[in-house]
Formats: sequence, structure tokens, C-alpha cells
Amino acid sequence: MPKLGNVSLAVIKRMPRYYRFLGDLAQQGMERISSRELSNRMGLTASQIRQDLNCFGGFGQQGYGYNVHQLQQEIGQILGLNKRRKVIIIGVGNIGRSMAMYMTYEFPAFEIIGMFDRKESLAGQILLGQPVRPIRQLDEFCRETRPDIAALCLPTAAAPEIAAQLHELGVRGVLNFTQYDVGLNYPEMDVENIHLNDSFMTLCYKLNRER
Amino acid sequence: MPKLGNVSLAVIKRMPRYYRFLGDLAQQGMERISSRELSNRMGLTASQIRQDLNCFGGFGQQGYGYNVHQLQQEIGQILGLNKRRKVIIIGVGNIGRSMAMYMTYEFPAFEIIGMFDRKESLAGQILLGQPVRPIRQLDEFCRETRPDIAALCLPTAAAPEIAAQLHELGVRGVLNFTQYDVGLNYPEMDVENIHLNDSFMTLCYKLNRER
Repeated sequence: MPKLGNVSLAVIKRMPRYYRFLGDLAQQGMERISSRELSNRMGLTASQIRQDLNCFGGFGQQGYGYNVHQLQQEIGQILGLNKRRKVIIIGVGNIGRSMAMYMTYEFPAFEIIGMFDRKESLAGQILLGQPVRPIRQLDEFCRETRPDIAALCLPTAAAPEIAAQLHELGVRGVLNFTQYDVGLNYPEMDVENIHLNDSFMTLCYKLNRER
Repeated sequence: MPKLGNVSLAVIKRMPRYYRFLGDLAQQGMERISSRELSNRMGLTASQIRQDLNCFGGFGQQGYGYNVHQLQQEIGQILGLNKRRKVIIIGVGNIGRSMAMYMTYEFPAFEIIGMFDRKESLAGQILLGQPVRPIRQLDEFCRETRPDIAALCLPTAAAPEIAAQLHELGVRGVLNFTQYDVGLNYPEMDVENIHLNDSFMTLCYKLNRER
């Protein structure tokens, strides 16, 4: 199984779900929960939950269970949500605009510090209180502001050139909405692919199978 | 490993990626490809590709490799992309609007037949050539038009009630953009969760780890 550090990717991928679930429970006023009840609610086995959390040192207490708020905070720290990350959006078409809006209102760990587009006609337009910048300013902007993450919201055909440029500029994180395989070409970058089409196709498959 | 029919979910999840890759190759004018070259380009092993495709009967020919166009078509059929699916969008905020636009322009297998919102003030507004309908018309609309898929683009707190209604109405497919766990509550529905926050958190984790 692929690993990141010494923890398997599968475990890491489950952490955001724990974080969300515990956040909901805390909001409902729940203070502590047994691993058994947590597992019932999440549709996992209690032993899986214990195993997952043990990858990071383990948090429960025999006979008490987990402190909901504390465990959520600790998982937030493991995920690094306590650090704000500087994000630039590249491409402000349908996807770019909606993602910029989504991040601004729904994901406080991301701070959008710049938005770029190839279309010179869009330059200067104000989105979410910030000007859209022409893509030719990308180099200078990155050298000055050192963004942590670039969200690639541009057409796939334009992605290889921009990815090479970002790599060169030392931008480490990529949210990749294009079909271009950034991770395959730049294994040292941290890439999350968001392929809506793949989810849509998987749903088509499920609907298509006989039951 | 969880399965869908007699094929593991992991294999099914890789099929869209094959479909995309082969589409790109066909567009570049490539007619046939060996499993070895395909594997090099996709960052998989040749034996994994053969194993994956064998789950559906296998398609290659010893010494010839794969016919690119034909294999893409066949994977498209496995995925059910040859059938158009009727989609309704529930919630036309930032996510709902952008998804409606994205599906309309980027995913021809989906046909948006209706859009709904709880806000009465939005009713009658025209989006992509269609009126936004008040949510109270959902029941009647679904009984008349029999949508295949509902895209849940509304606030998480409103999701349980709508999911129950859709389940009752016999809508089988759900594209779930909320944090509500539809699949856990209605295992007989076909659900694809699109949790942007989870991808964002996973990227935060990757950036946070020491290297």
C-alpha cells in the first residue's frame, strides 16, 4: 500500500472523515464517545478506528473512550489545519470561480492570495474583492508572495506549461482540476487531483450494473 | 476489498482514468498501444493493467496490444457512458450552479432536466435555459420525469430530509456534495460523495509532514 511518511495513504484519506464526524458530534454537544459508538455511526469497525488512530500515537482511554472535542483538535493538528496556507487560483472560468468562492466561505485553512487567467480581457476584473491578474505576472507574483498551493482550474491543454512553471518557482502544493497528470510528471510536488468526471463516471457504472 | 457485482471497487475506480488516458491517445492519433507502453504512460505496471481489464473479459491481443479507440469505447460501455442519465440539481448556490454548468459543458452523459432551490425568491430565475423550481415541486416533478440522479448541492443540515424524500421517490443515484452520509443511511441508493474538503485536508496533511 502506498505510504506517506510511515502512515499508509488509506489511513490518511480517512482522517478528514473522522474530523468531519467529530466536528458534527461536538456541535451536537457530545463530550465523549466510545470507539464502539463512533464505529457504529461511521460504518467502520471499532478495531479499524483504534488501528487508524494508533498510527498517530493513539488517543483513547480504556473505559472512557474518546474526548470528542480534543480528538477532533488533535486530528486537525495531524492534518495541519491549524496552519493557514496561501493559495493561488489559476484560471477563473466556471470551476476556478466556484472553487475560489468555496474555499473562501467553506475552508478557513486556505487563504486566496491571487487569481490568474490567460484571458487578458479578464485582467483587472474584481472577484471576491481581488483583481484577476494576467498570467504573465505569475512568475513575479510567486517570487514575491511564495504561495503554498496552486489550484489548476484551466484547460488541460494549458496545464503542462503552467505545472512546469510552478515547479520551477517552488510551489509545492497543487489542487489539480485538469486531466493532466501533474503527480506523474512532478513526483516531488504534493498533488491532490479532483476529477469530477471520474466520480460522475463511477456513478454511471453503478447505475448501469444489473441488480 | 469492497466489491460491486463481482468486480472490486478499486478496479472500477481506475476505469475512468483508463477512459481518459485512451481518449487523449486517440485524439493524438494513436491507433494501437502495447500494455507495456500504456503502463509506462499511466504509471501502473503492465500486469496490473492486464489484470484490471481481465475483470471485464480482457481486450488485448497477444503481440498486437490494444486498439486504442476500440478499448476506449469498450470501457465507455462498461461504465455505461453510452446511456444518457437524467439529472436534477438540488440547491443552486455556488456549488449547484457551477456543477450544473460543468455537467452541461463537460459531461455529455448527464442531461440536466430540473433545478430546485429552497429559496422561493430564486424560483423562476433562468439558469442554463431552465427555470429554477421551488423545492415543494420536487415530488410532483420526480413522479412525472423519473430522474436517474439527484445532485445534492444544498446545506448539510437540509440533506437528511431531501435524501429521505428522494429515496421514497425512487431516485436511485445521488451525487452528494454535502457532509451528510447518504450511503450509510440508504445503502440501496447508488451514491458518489464529492467531498472537496477532504481533498483540501489531505493536501494540508501532505504539506504539513516533514521531508
